[in-house]
Amino acid sequence: MSFHDEILSIREQISFDESFNLPASFSNIALCGMGGSAIAGMFLSDIYSRVPVSVINDYRIPDWVGPETLFIAMSHSGNTEETISATEKARDRKASILIITSGGSLSSFEGKKIMIPRNLQPRSSIGYMLVPLLRTFGLFDKDIEKDTLAAIDSVLEKKEEIKALAELLVSSKKIPVIYGIPPTPTSAYRWKTQFNENAKILAHSSTIPEMNHNELAAIPHTYRADGFEFFVAGHPEGRYLDRVRITETITKVKFHLLPLFSESVVPQMFASIVYGDLLSFYVAESRKIDPEDVSVLKKLKTSLSGNSQ
Amino acid sequence: MSFHDEILSIREQISFDESFNLPASFSNIALCGMGGSAIAGMFLSDIYSRVPVSVINDYRIPDWVGPETLFIAMSHSGNTEETISATEKARDRKASILIITSGGSLSSFEGKKIMIPRNLQPRSSIGYMLVPLLRTFGLFDKDIEKDTLAAIDSVLEKKEEIKALAELLVSSKKIPVIYGIPPTPTSAYRWKTQFNENAKILAHSSTIPEMNHNELAAIPHTYRADGFEFFVAGHPEGRYLDRVRITETITKVKFHLLPLFSESVVPQMFASIVYGDLLSFYVAESRKIDPEDVSVLKKLKTSLSGNSQ
Repeated sequence: MSFHDEILSIREQISFDESFNLPASFSNIALCGMGGSAIAGMFLSDIYSRVPVSVINDYRIPDWVGPETLFIAMSHSGNTEETISATEKARDRKASILIITSGGSLSSFEGKKIMIPRNLQPRSSIGYMLVPLLRTFGLFDKDIEKDTLAAIDSVLEKKEEIKALAELLVSSKKIPVIYGIPPTPTSAYRWKTQFNENAKILAHSSTIPEMNHNELAAIPHTYRADGFEFFVAGHPEGRYLDRVRITETITKVKFHLLPLFSESVVPQMFASIVYGDLLSFYVAESRKIDPEDVSVLKKLKTSLSGNSQ
Repeated sequence: MSFHDEILSIREQISFDESFNLPASFSNIALCGMGGSAIAGMFLSDIYSRVPVSVINDYRIPDWVGPETLFIAMSHSGNTEETISATEKARDRKASILIITSGGSLSSFEGKKIMIPRNLQPRSSIGYMLVPLLRTFGLFDKDIEKDTLAAIDSVLEKKEEIKALAELLVSSKKIPVIYGIPPTPTSAYRWKTQFNENAKILAHSSTIPEMNHNELAAIPHTYRADGFEFFVAGHPEGRYLDRVRITETITKVKFHLLPLFSESVVPQMFASIVYGDLLSFYVAESRKIDPEDVSVLKKLKTSLSGNSQ
């Protein structure tokens, strides 16, 4: 399957019909994962807040993880050392463990499991990881599925516009600076990591309104000002839109905003994911870089496993 | 007071002897603040984890905020609109409210308050904000205070080295990329925001091990590769040091690591803060930029208040 087809396979992934039966009681959630396997947990923490949700990107787990914790371990390969180490600790603390993986060591842990297909890259499996989480917490049903598909199709209609943006980035060697906004600020981080892994360029993400309290002061005065292009990975409204417009006026920089692909949060979130995925893919294509290749990341894993823990 | 003296006033700030009496019971903590007033909460969430701690940088609060929540509102001016809006919502949900401020609207809320001096910039008041939080949660005592002072003084002895790093950044117009590591990954974000506000340059922060799963893939292949300089805002050890060394080998990029200023977490954390503060200050000095001036941020606030919410 081409990498472009991998990205578009999100259209099938959103009908992935798996979910967890939740334990009768839990008072907090720890979602553990790294990189492409963490991002689904970050999106969940954007939109689900009945109990505190923390995303853990480390070997260590917080002291509060215990019998009242729902501990969700996510690793595409099932062999991510940080995630395995954190999950072992959570098991020792008697947390309720839920696992999303395609195999590996993680699949031999006790606990409820959702097995996902192995054939895609972790970062291309975001639907397989995110949809079961959303279904588990009552945030995804047939209607949302339909709206999400429609929103994704509206993004695909913008293909030429997205290609032009990619061309702009490559022709002037611009480093993307991406701002996330509520209700799904994680979108900006997703774009950043896709620029890193697919297009192999550095990228920077932050959020609005937080950037209004620090980064804004840098934009009008920074050196290398011609080296950056600014994006908002969402469709700002209300006070957030005021902030974007005033920021543009003060900095004299035009931000690229995401169109409104859906009035609903979840379809708009998926639209932002696909938009960023395609943008990073077209940057790779324009640079003649293989978007699929992450041999650099594998090299680190090999060196680390030669270096016993 | 010169801005350099403001930075060094941290030596006096660490003896700020205020703390809150905690309510008999609480099951989670929400720390609300923006920019320079949020960072103390982020550092607390790095090292305190008896109950889930979330840092909120927005008008909105999570659904779980309620009577069992300790809601800590932090705003230097007391007039930050996001913080006031979030605190009003927390009050309506009957959370226990603790406030750290120097005045403004926030000082007229009901709830326990710690009043801090007004004479410094918010970002220079980090000791006044962080030390009471640490004392409240039993993480700061006379011995740690002494060790922290010693660690800060060891940073000051490195002044010439820090100036040379600043010169390196300015002479080649390098954008700093700063990685945080456990146990206090927030250090990298502090450095980033200080580069933004003091030196008025863009800067990018991420964390180790997370960057090993995405950003690492970009470093060897990115365009504008000569435009960045890489830092670790901490002293990595064990598996984290393995990761840094392997990352350097693979990317052929040398990272600047922070020396070990103390064997203890809290003094080392303050040492990293002062190191980054001075580094950003010397960049400003070398660029002939006023480090204190944040008129751009004030302009936004003025425009926003003209634009009723």
